[in-house]
Amino acid sequence: MDYAGRIAKLQSALDEFQVDALLVTELGEAGGILPHIRYLSGFSGSNGMILVMPDSAHFFTDFRYKTQSKQEVHVCEVHVPSEYSKVYDLIREIVGEGKRIGVIGSKMTVAGFEGLKKKFSDASIAFVPVKDMIAKLRSVKEDAEIEAIRAAQELTDKLFDRILEKIRPDVMTELDLAAEIEYMMKKLGAEGYSFRTIVASGAHTAVVHAQPRNVVIKNNTPLLIDMGLRLNGYVSDMTRTLWIGSKPDLEFVKLYQIVLDAQELAEEKAKPGMTSVQIDRLARDYIEQHGYGEFFGHSLGHGVGLEVHELPRVSHSKDFETKIVENMVFTVEPGIYIEGFAGVRIEDIVVMRSDGVEVITKSPKELLTL
Amino acid sequence: MDYAGRIAKLQSALDEFQVDALLVTELGEAGGILPHIRYLSGFSGSNGMILVMPDSAHFFTDFRYKTQSKQEVHVCEVHVPSEYSKVYDLIREIVGEGKRIGVIGSKMTVAGFEGLKKKFSDASIAFVPVKDMIAKLRSVKEDAEIEAIRAAQELTDKLFDRILEKIRPDVMTELDLAAEIEYMMKKLGAEGYSFRTIVASGAHTAVVHAQPRNVVIKNNTPLLIDMGLRLNGYVSDMTRTLWIGSKPDLEFVKLYQIVLDAQELAEEKAKPGMTSVQIDRLARDYIEQHGYGEFFGHSLGHGVGLEVHELPRVSHSKDFETKIVENMVFTVEPGIYIEGFAGVRIEDIVVMRSDGVEVITKSPKELLTL
Repeated sequence: MDYAGRIAKLQSALDEFQVDALLVTELGEAGGILPHIRYLSGFSGSNGMILVMPDSAHFFTDFRYKTQSKQEVHVCEVHVPSEYSKVYDLIREIVGEGKRIGVIGSKMTVAGFEGLKKKFSDASIAFVPVKDMIAKLRSVKEDAEIEAIRAAQELTDKLFDRILEKIRPDVMTELDLAAEIEYMMKKLGAEGYSFRTIVASGAHTAVVHAQPRNVVIKNNTPLLIDMGLRLNGYVSDMTRTLWIGSKPDLEFVKLYQIVLDAQELAEEKAKPGMTSVQIDRLARDYIEQHGYGEFFGHSLGHGVGLEVHELPRVSHSKDFETKIVENMVFTVEPGIYIEGFAGVRIEDIVVMRSDGVEVITKSPKELLTL
Repeated sequence: MDYAGRIAKLQSALDEFQVDALLVTELGEAGGILPHIRYLSGFSGSNGMILVMPDSAHFFTDFRYKTQSKQEVHVCEVHVPSEYSKVYDLIREIVGEGKRIGVIGSKMTVAGFEGLKKKFSDASIAFVPVKDMIAKLRSVKEDAEIEAIRAAQELTDKLFDRILEKIRPDVMTELDLAAEIEYMMKKLGAEGYSFRTIVASGAHTAVVHAQPRNVVIKNNTPLLIDMGLRLNGYVSDMTRTLWIGSKPDLEFVKLYQIVLDAQELAEEKAKPGMTSVQIDRLARDYIEQHGYGEFFGHSLGHGVGLEVHELPRVSHSKDFETKIVENMVFTVEPGIYIEGFAGVRIEDIVVMRSDGVEVITKSPKELLTL
């Protein structure tokens, strides 16, 4: 991981932001880590801030992380004040009076910002909200990051394979299966789930963000599993939809094939330099052509990395349109959801390469029947 | 749950805040729920906002939650616009021009606040950050909430009992045991964990926020388990420290007894009307008198309810001093941590009653040896 390069990119942006320093904070843990802080420093604990100065970088944490921060943190100088509230005195000392410090507006609450300004009201330090350029940096992955995501997804493929053997229709509930999946994640060595596992069966597969219910998984119904784990900080995310029973419903088979074709089309035709909207359109147009456009209510995909939802958004919305460039990692997950009948979603992780996408996810995509 | 009463309390605070309406937003899911939104409306989904007007209340969500919101939401009128971005038009219509809307400063980012102001820049609506009075309301529980916490803790006591039978020293790792615990939570019917389970053995018990490691739990060492689950939205939280082996180390026994005595003293002497600092002091003074003050580095406790950390903070810090009143629910969890040797923490949930605390947690507290 190129921690020095990441910090250097922030340092060279200070001028553009018209600030003398950048204070990187987080709103709270996302899945047990502080993603921006971890990205910039390697620190995996739950409390920390980073101050980026033109020629140096400083990491602050509390006494609980004294040993850990010294082992983990790269590039930055580590400060562990005896009381954490003293970090503000340290910042004042390091930055100096009469300076402007940028803070990331999307990573600080209004109340937190007011509190910060109050702490420095006597000093002539100004705080200025700036754009979250770290989120943008994080959207384009380094090779080591791609390998970390690949390792997480490989473990997920292995997990999926084992899970198939565990499914006991007419006995197991959706909650039972979700519990098995999350248990096996840990037994396989993952740090835990990257989001709460979705297991939906029967008509409930048509609920996009279904939570597992205390409902038995029946024979002769569809089953949708959407799961992801965290390994060495990086996450996986995959969805497969199966048919429980040897004779899948013919309407379901049709939906499945349309979703699969849409996904494979998008994976085949997506090229670097296209925008997120254009890539979303590849799958969406196909689904619309087959008459199911209104049943594909969500985006085609989202970035994955240290978080399970990060940039780029691969959406049909012009508001979030971005150019998809080499080494962006994102999901491709079209779906069709027919209320009261069934939903199908198939989700892979891909990495954009110079000639198109490489599909990271290796689990089978033909319609599995159990 | 008294949803009408909760909304009414916000309505009667509008004048004090000098606003015409209050827009309640959340920063993101905490453990799969939006705690403030759930508290005010009963809604258990992952996206929603509430607008409190002097004589009405309005709930907004997106199409995914159309059915669920209509089933779950109390008191508020439910609005599900065809596109979620249209909620701002709805708000404009409901509130009217020339009005002031309060937003909770600790529940909105600086960037989100700027975005909101921009959306309304053409209308003469002003947005004003206000204090988070909902967090304060939530700190004093209704009877139904206390029963919900009790049910979650009862399930946790049952879980603890089963877990004791599962521990296999010299075979199982900390991660294995954590995976078992979280698996059994779900099998017992919980929605999942309320925080990532802490399992620490040996000298690692002295690390306050230890994450389970891939390290075998050895015989003749201490074992610390800190776990909590979520049931019907409400959480539990408990810690027990055991000795693995029949002959506990004598120094460990001594630490254990001091922590236990400190905890029982605090539980016995805490009365309504005392401040959080005074209650913290009950246990802290005792530990200090026995020479271990510097090894008790954290607060005595914290509120629990829809979140595992909520108000009141029961801390020695004057900054957070609050009066502890009847029907506040919080943890009592003193600890002593000796680096390189062992840590002991014993944590109960208690509810403040008119004559002192009622201890909700029923798991045994005498030193268990396995």
